Formats: sequence, C-alpha cells, structure tokens
Amino acid sequence: MSPGPRGRRPGGGDARADILYAARDLFARDGYEKASMRAIARRAHVDPALIVHYFATKENLLREALVLPVDPAALLADGLAGVPDERLGVELVRLVLGVWETPAVRPMMQGMLRTAISHDLAMTVLRQMLQRTVVAAVSRLADDHSAQQRAELVGAQMAGLALTRYLIGLPTLAAMSVDEVAEAVGPSVQHYLTGTMSA
Amino acid sequence: MSPGPRGRRPGGGDARADILYAARDLFARDGYEKASMRAIARRAHVDPALIVHYFATKENLLREALVLPVDPAALLADGLAGVPDERLGVELVRLVLGVWETPAVRPMMQGMLRTAISHDLAMTVLRQMLQRTVVAAVSRLADDHSAQQRAELVGAQMAGLALTRYLIGLPTLAAMSVDEVAEAVGPSVQHYLTGTMSA
Repeated sequence: MSPGPRGRRPGGGDARADILYAARDLFARDGYEKASMRAIARRAHVDPALIVHYFATKENLLREALVLPVDPAALLADGLAGVPDERLGVELVRLVLGVWETPAVRPMMQGMLRTAISHDLAMTVLRQMLQRTVVAAVSRLADDHSAQQRAELVGAQMAGLALTRYLIGLPTLAAMSVDEVAEAVGPSVQHYLTGTMSA
Repeated sequence: MSPGPRGRRPGGGDARADILYAARDLFARDGYEKASMRAIARRAHVDPALIVHYFATKENLLREALVLPVDPAALLADGLAGVPDERLGVELVRLVLGVWETPAVRPMMQGMLRTAISHDLAMTVLRQMLQRTVVAAVSRLADDHSAQQRAELVGAQMAGLALTRYLIGLPTLAAMSVDEVAEAVGPSVQHYLTGTMSA
C-alpha cells in the first residue's frame, strides 16, 4: 500500500478507521447527499485530501462505510456449525443479534439502516449482504429449489427485527434481551429454514 | 367546511387528493426536506396557497400524506371476525398484503416506507400505525400481559415483509403471489399470536 500523505498521522492506520467512523456518523445524521467530504474530514480530524487518497469517491466511501467490521456469512457458518438442525432458528437469531449488538456494531445499526433505506447504492449493498448472509445460513439445509425462497423469508424476518428493534423502536421489542428475542423469533426462523413451503 | 379559494377548481374535492398524491410522490422521490411546497403545488396543478389552505404546514401535509386511504385497525378487525383462531396467522398476512397491494395503496408503498424511515415525524406515524394495527389484531386473542409483546412481534414480521418485498426487493419474495406469501409467513405470525412466549 502507498504511504499516507506527508506530515499527517505517522503510521496512518487509524486515520482510515476514523474517516469511516465519521462518515457513518454524518451519513446517518445528515443523510448521504448532505454530508460533505469536508464535514467528514473535519469530524475525523484529517485533511480532506486524505479521504480522496483512501476512498477516491464519496460513493466508494459510502460503500465501505456500510461494510460491517465482520463477515456475516463466515460468522454464521462458523457459529452454526455444531448446532442441531432443530435448534438452527433460535441459534441463528441469537448469533445475528449478537453481531448487531457488539460494541463495534450496535452504535451504527440505527444510522446504517436509515442510510441504507434512503439511498439506492446503500440499498443495493444491504440487499447483497442480506442475500449472501442468509443464503449461506440455509445452504447446509436446503440445496433444492426452495433455498432462495427460504433464505429471503429469513432475511425478511431479520430485517423486520432490525428495523423495529433498532430504528422504529417498538418499546417491548427494544427492551427484550437477546435471549428473549431468540426464543420468541427462533421458531419462525426455524419454520422458514425447515418447515413445509408451498412453492 | 370552508370552500376552496375563489376561481380554482369548482367543487375542489379533488384538489386536496391531488395535493396529497403529489406530496407522497415528491417526498418519496426527493425526501421530505428537499420537496418544496412550491414543487408539490406545481405537480398537483394548484396554487401554493391552496396547500396552506388545506394543510396549514408542510409537517401536517406529511402527516396526512402518510395516512392510508383505509383504517387498518378497523379493516383487520372486520376481516378477521369469522376466522378460526388457528387460521389467524395466514389470514392476517393475506389481509394486510391485500390492503398494501390494492391499486390505491401499492404505488405508494415504496415511497411511504422510504419517507417514513428517513424522517422522524414519519417514523412516529409509522410506529403508531404499526402498534395500533397489530394491537387491534391480537386483542381478541391475548388480553394478558403478553399482548403487547405478541403485537410487536407480528409488527416486526410484517414490517420486514414490507421492507423486503416492496423496498429492498428481494427477488423471490417480490415475485411470490399474496397467497404464497400468506401460506409461507402465516405460520410465523400464528406463532406470535398463539404460540408459547417465554415472557
């Protein structure tokens, strides 16, 4: 990799993370269109040129700001490896909520959801992430023609859970523990993974 | 009611609807902040003063633009009146999707979801509507302490369905018929309505 611009942050390893953090913050607060590169640079305490150096364009900055610090597909595959089939629903919900509510991710959930839903590029990233993640989760179960349908039904359930728990803030749902949500929503996810589907 | 301004649209009954239609369109396309009263008036082919006459403020216009042409709580209560308890899940999904996909509502779903999620007032309206609707739907079943939790779990499932079918556009889910979605998602809603809950 090329070194950072002269005179700014020796090492520079944190500047990139600072920019991403500031971008998520401002995209969430002001929306993608209104959040300027200059304002993001100011918040990250870096020179605007450094953003161009790392990310080239604002659109690319958005794309990278939306990438979770973890790979959800790999994490799900690992986390569900030892789980018996009939517990997959509950454990998938517990695992996904566990990721969403780690200290690194939880503060970004509201802003990421809002940004994603109000911007087409971000929406595309969200759609791809949902599809990749849930398809990975069901692939060990359903390799027939229903796999895609099952994956999308799981995706719809999890997307609705994220929307109402983190962004809309339905009061009881927002106050339940991860374990309580996993026990309540798990059977529905289990139905999508292993239940009878008409199609 | 006071008559419309002199010289504009004799009868005036359609102007109010035209303004609401134009407002939904522009709020969805440009976002609430960017969509000006002047642009909404131009699209509705009315004088901007007429918007003030009918709605007073832009915020109030947004509030009314978000109100569905039907009362979801009454519609659910009516539609579920003769349904046996064990079919409630499937029939609730069929009924709600039926409303969302009437010719009057379907074209607005994407825009309404996007507006609601990117604007706090709209989010509040959405939250209240979700709560009123689903609480009404479960009230005949669960009048104990779990009613609110059950209602919110149904709300999360239905919100996720709307988000992924109309806005994110997961391909298989968007292509399924209302009956197919009702059969696939119904058992999950049934679980939230009548299944065992831990809390």
